[in-house]
Amino acid sequence: MQKEKTAEKESDKFFMSLAIKEAKKGGVLTHPNPLVGAVVVKNGKILSKGYHKFFGKEHAEVNAIKKLSNNKLKDSTLYVTLEPCSTYGKTPPCTDLIIRSQIKRVVVGSIDPNPLHRGKGIKILRDNGISVETEVLRELSEKLNEPFFKNMRENRPYITIKFASSIDSKIADRNYKSKWISSKDSRIYAHKLRSESDCILVGSNTVIKDNPLLNVREYKFRVQPDVCVIDRNLKISPESNIFKEKRRVFISTDRETLKSKYPNNAILLKTTFHNGEIDIKDLLKKLYDNGIKHILIEGGGRTIGSFVSDGFFDRIVAFISPLVIGSDGISAIDKALKKRNDDLGTRLKMDYIKKIRDDIMVVYKRI
Amino acid sequence: MQKEKTAEKESDKFFMSLAIKEAKKGGVLTHPNPLVGAVVVKNGKILSKGYHKFFGKEHAEVNAIKKLSNNKLKDSTLYVTLEPCSTYGKTPPCTDLIIRSQIKRVVVGSIDPNPLHRGKGIKILRDNGISVETEVLRELSEKLNEPFFKNMRENRPYITIKFASSIDSKIADRNYKSKWISSKDSRIYAHKLRSESDCILVGSNTVIKDNPLLNVREYKFRVQPDVCVIDRNLKISPESNIFKEKRRVFISTDRETLKSKYPNNAILLKTTFHNGEIDIKDLLKKLYDNGIKHILIEGGGRTIGSFVSDGFFDRIVAFISPLVIGSDGISAIDKALKKRNDDLGTRLKMDYIKKIRDDIMVVYKRI
Repeated sequence: MQKEKTAEKESDKFFMSLAIKEAKKGGVLTHPNPLVGAVVVKNGKILSKGYHKFFGKEHAEVNAIKKLSNNKLKDSTLYVTLEPCSTYGKTPPCTDLIIRSQIKRVVVGSIDPNPLHRGKGIKILRDNGISVETEVLRELSEKLNEPFFKNMRENRPYITIKFASSIDSKIADRNYKSKWISSKDSRIYAHKLRSESDCILVGSNTVIKDNPLLNVREYKFRVQPDVCVIDRNLKISPESNIFKEKRRVFISTDRETLKSKYPNNAILLKTTFHNGEIDIKDLLKKLYDNGIKHILIEGGGRTIGSFVSDGFFDRIVAFISPLVIGSDGISAIDKALKKRNDDLGTRLKMDYIKKIRDDIMVVYKRI
Repeated sequence: MQKEKTAEKESDKFFMSLAIKEAKKGGVLTHPNPLVGAVVVKNGKILSKGYHKFFGKEHAEVNAIKKLSNNKLKDSTLYVTLEPCSTYGKTPPCTDLIIRSQIKRVVVGSIDPNPLHRGKGIKILRDNGISVETEVLRELSEKLNEPFFKNMRENRPYITIKFASSIDSKIADRNYKSKWISSKDSRIYAHKLRSESDCILVGSNTVIKDNPLLNVREYKFRVQPDVCVIDRNLKISPESNIFKEKRRVFISTDRETLKSKYPNNAILLKTTFHNGEIDIKDLLKKLYDNGIKHILIEGGGRTIGSFVSDGFFDRIVAFISPLVIGSDGISAIDKALKKRNDDLGTRLKMDYIKKIRDDIMVVYKRI
């Protein structure tokens, strides 16, 4: 009996790992919805697979189930990486479909972290006589959608810090020249990061010195991410490139109004400042209230340093190029960190490393 | 005929690749001699292999040949990664042994770069009726002994720059606290670098602030490397830890004498300075004249910056730890580089990258 139980657990893990693989087929076109994968199995045989493809379209379970006749579905097991939804959103509740399909057993990777939905789908299935196993490969299932879980658990946007620097951690020379620090291939990864975010955040200096477009050009995307500029004294030009895309451009300031000459897509984000330093917690709350679930911080050094110093980040993605710029260059992280006396600095955990031609992409997580 | 020729070339490459693999079995115990490997082949069958194991002991060819009877050796082919020596050094000339062994054909990876020996061994073999093929897998054969080739070709020491830094390229916090920036495993690699070098070079500030031992502790070694401190004004203490090993400690200064209280192993290295800046070319010449073939530069930031700025380095080995120290930390490369106006900085070529737990070791080569 014990052995059978173990064998079942192993096969559950195996089929869940396939569902996770399915989920990963989704991507930026699913954003900002979570990635979800599903697999239907009967008598140890895979009958169908599905994943959540497009934001607002069919969920993974639906895509897996709709491929099968009622006859096949009857008494089958559904593996799904995230608890099935039980409410009407952009699509009808998946629990209804599962019950109608006479599926016998449902195996769930991660329970929906949204306090409004958490466990409800599972209860409805059980109330309808379906056997439900939960939290199989939970960590890997959650890893599919880290921003989503962070949002629900901490009630703030997920924060990615990104910079491209030389090996001496400079993002530009002393004249703010930075063109092609990293290779074209690295830039594709950087644009993927943009397309996965809802909002690209920079300090005013970056806009003034660089005048970047801050849009997605080298990767597919569903919508262009919004932009947020920390610009207490409204120093950025109304002609700045960031205004050129159709999207919101939040200007974080403690002033009451924006200058009249700013374009229509400029949005006042009234934020608290203390002695000239932005209150990051307040900024994050305001952005979250505006629907921003995932922020990509792209610089400059003072802005990145502030977020690191205050511990407001979830991961740092560093692109390191084979180049020494020297001490007169502009630093990627340019702030003395608040830290306890016995700390050398802010410790991180390496999550992932990738060689991209002569560049390195390293992803660090906050500990 | 053409086909046979190609087939022969392919098999030559194959056996040479085995000889290269043999050579790599040597290591710091061979140092400062080059790594060399040899394989004896007859009728497509490998009869024996050998490599140069210990400094001053038998060469690779000898180790391969001495395993075989004269009968077996007759008419065989010898593959050797470096041109066989033809002079009496610490061992008798390998060419004599090869001729005596009645080996029919010798295939050489790289020709000896030493102007005194270059091509002589090959000529002697040919004069004795042995067919010699040269430069098979030349690049890989040379890569076994980059310092050796650099020495012979440029008449200066091979230079490795090494630092262990945070992701923002700081080697210590503002109080020069740096203990355990990198993990124990990374330190083993760092000590391997020391054991492969003849001399560890640092600026006086590093000795004053850190008082490091600068010896090999976490890796095997044949002899402890010498130390060179750039210390124009003789500021380092005679009690410094660097004096504690039995080895030479060169003190680079423009003074005429050292202070009398320096220990016996302190050696005056009279060097040219211009406006307080060391003349690196002069320093390298003086060290080379003292038998230093491979320098490991370990810091601090100004010293490393000077060597990078003047283009005097062959590779940079960076250990990057999962840590942010912040802008008040001590920079790994702390010098504004001399560069042409259109250069962003000094471009490098990535040679090798290794994940060491949460650290990254990256080896860059000078372009």
